Amino acid sequence: MSLLIIGSVALDSIQTPFGEKKDILGGSAVYASVAARFYCPVKLVAAVGEDFPEEHVRFLEGQKIDVRGLQRIHGGKTFRWSGYYEYDMNQAHTRDTKLNVLGSFDPKIPPEFLDAEFVFLANLDPALQLKVLAQIKRPKLVAMDTMNFWIENRREDLHKVIKKVDILLINDAELRQFMETPNLPVAARRLLELGVKAVIVKKGEHGALYFSHDEHFSAPSFPQAQFRDPTGAGDSFAGGFMGYLAKTDDLSHANIRRAIIVGSVMASFNVEDFSLDRLKRLQAHEIAERFAEFKRFSHFDAVEL
Amino acid sequence: MSLLIIGSVALDSIQTPFGEKKDILGGSAVYASVAARFYCPVKLVAAVGEDFPEEHVRFLEGQKIDVRGLQRIHGGKTFRWSGYYEYDMNQAHTRDTKLNVLGSFDPKIPPEFLDAEFVFLANLDPALQLKVLAQIKRPKLVAMDTMNFWIENRREDLHKVIKKVDILLINDAELRQFMETPNLPVAARRLLELGVKAVIVKKGEHGALYFSHDEHFSAPSFPQAQFRDPTGAGDSFAGGFMGYLAKTDDLSHANIRRAIIVGSVMASFNVEDFSLDRLKRLQAHEIAERFAEFKRFSHFDAVEL
Repeated sequence: MSLLIIGSVALDSIQTPFGEKKDILGGSAVYASVAARFYCPVKLVAAVGEDFPEEHVRFLEGQKIDVRGLQRIHGGKTFRWSGYYEYDMNQAHTRDTKLNVLGSFDPKIPPEFLDAEFVFLANLDPALQLKVLAQIKRPKLVAMDTMNFWIENRREDLHKVIKKVDILLINDAELRQFMETPNLPVAARRLLELGVKAVIVKKGEHGALYFSHDEHFSAPSFPQAQFRDPTGAGDSFAGGFMGYLAKTDDLSHANIRRAIIVGSVMASFNVEDFSLDRLKRLQAHEIAERFAEFKRFSHFDAVEL
Repeated sequence: MSLLIIGSVALDSIQTPFGEKKDILGGSAVYASVAARFYCPVKLVAAVGEDFPEEHVRFLEGQKIDVRGLQRIHGGKTFRWSGYYEYDMNQAHTRDTKLNVLGSFDPKIPPEFLDAEFVFLANLDPALQLKVLAQIKRPKLVAMDTMNFWIENRREDLHKVIKKVDILLINDAELRQFMETPNLPVAARRLLELGVKAVIVKKGEHGALYFSHDEHFSAPSFPQAQFRDPTGAGDSFAGGFMGYLAKTDDLSHANIRRAIIVGSVMASFNVEDFSLDRLKRLQAHEIAERFAEFKRFSHFDAVEL
C-alpha cells in the first residue's frame, strides 16, 4: 500500500548544545516521508519556493519518494523555521518563523495520488488539512499531527478535522494544553469524546502512549545517550508508524503496537544527528536490531503473587 | 526472607486539588513498610515523638509490621512535613518541614533485626544511612532512596553511602540534578561509575527505568486516571520492589524486572487516595489484576522488517 503525506517542507536553522546549522532541509512532511520510505511507497504533497535547492529535490527522489505533488511556487520563498534547544533539549524555542509559501499554500492532490490507502496529514494549518480531506476518497487510515500554534489560534478548525481522522498524533504538553488537564489519560479520554478514533501521545524521552476506546498501549522510551537534535522526532515517529501500517496493511491492535515501536525506532535514530543526516545513512539491519532492543529492554514475565 | 526498613515516620499536612488533610500518617519508612508487608515480614526502624498517636502504632502492628525498632523519643515531637501539589501534581511544594526527633535521631538496629537479608534505607540523612550500614552484617541486598535536600546539602555523605549499597532509587529530576546532566541514560551511567551497582529512576507518571552495568529495563507508566495524592508514591514503589525481592529471594535480571513492576503496581494504588488509605483496603487479587494489566498494555510482538 502507498502512503500520501501532506505537510511542510522547510529550511531550518537550528542550534543545539551540539552544534549550529543554517538552512538545512527539514519540515514535517520531509521527516515523515524519509522515515516512511523504509517501509512503503511515499507520495509527497507540499509547497516550496524558488529558493529551494534542487539538490534537496534530488535527495527526496533518490529516497524513492514520489515528488510529483511538490509544488514549486514561482516568486515564492520556502517556509523557514529558526530555533534553538537549551541544555534540556525537550523544549524547542522558536527564534523566527517565516511561513512564506505556506501562507498561501492551496494543497492540490495530483489525480495519480488520489488512490493512496494511507494518508498522513503532517503538522500544518488544520484549514489546509480539511482541504486535503475534501479532495481524497475515503482511505483505509488517516492520521494527523498538530501543534500548539494551531491549538491556540485555530481551535475551531482543529475540532473539525479531528472528527474526520482516525488517529491524532500529539505531544504530551500539547495534549495537556488542548484538553486543559495535566492528566494524560484523562486528556486522551476527552479527546476521544471529540470524535477521533485513537490518539498517540508522543512523550519524547518518555516514550509514547496509545489510547482508543477499547485499547491502551504504553511504548517504552529508548535510552538515548546519543542525542544531538530533537527536530523532526515526532515527524519521523509518524512516518515510521504510518509507513509500517501501509506496508503491512494490518490495522489489528497487535500490529498498531508494532507500528508504534517502529515509529519509536525511527525517532530514536533521527535525533542522533542533525536534519536527515542519520536517516540518510540508516540501514535496514540497524532498524531490526533496534526493534529487538526495544523488546529486550521492556519485556517482563508474568508473576505469581 | 525479611526486610529491614529504616526511614522517616511523619505526620503530614497535605493539600492537593482533591482535598486537604492535616496531620495524617506518612513518612518514607511507613509507606515503604505498608507496601512491602504484602510480600514479606517487615522490620521497621524509625523514631517518633511523644505526640505520635498510639492508633498509628496499632495500625502498623495490625499490618504485621515488626515495630520493635520504632523508638519513641521522650519529650520529642514527630517529624512533620507540610506541603501542597498544584494542578499538575508531579511537583511537591514544601510549606514547612519540622525535623523534630529526626534532627537528633541516632538509629539503633535491635539485635533481633540484624539478620535481615534485605535492607531498604528509605529517604533519610545519608549520615544516618551510613550509621545503619555500620551496624548490620552484609545482607543479600541493600537499596537506598534519597532526595534533593541531601544532594544539595550532604553531597559528600551521599557519595559515601552510594558506594556501599547495591541499588539507588532516585527520581528523574533529582538524578539530573545530582549528575548535572538532563540526559537520564547519561546520568545513570555517571552514577554507576560512582560505585553503585544499579539505579532505578522513578519518573512518576512516565514509569521507571533500571540501569546496571549490563542491563537496562524500561517499566511502563500506568494510565492513572484516579490520582488524588502523589505523596509516598516513590516509597510505596520501593516497598513493593524490595518486598517482592525479599519474598522471592531471587536477584536474577528477570526477577528484578518483575519486582520493578510490582513496585509500580503498589505506587499506582497508593496515589489513588490520601495517606495509606488505599493500601489499607488493598486486596491481593487487585494487585494480581493490575500486574496483569501492566503486562497487557505494554507487551508487543516481534516483527519481520
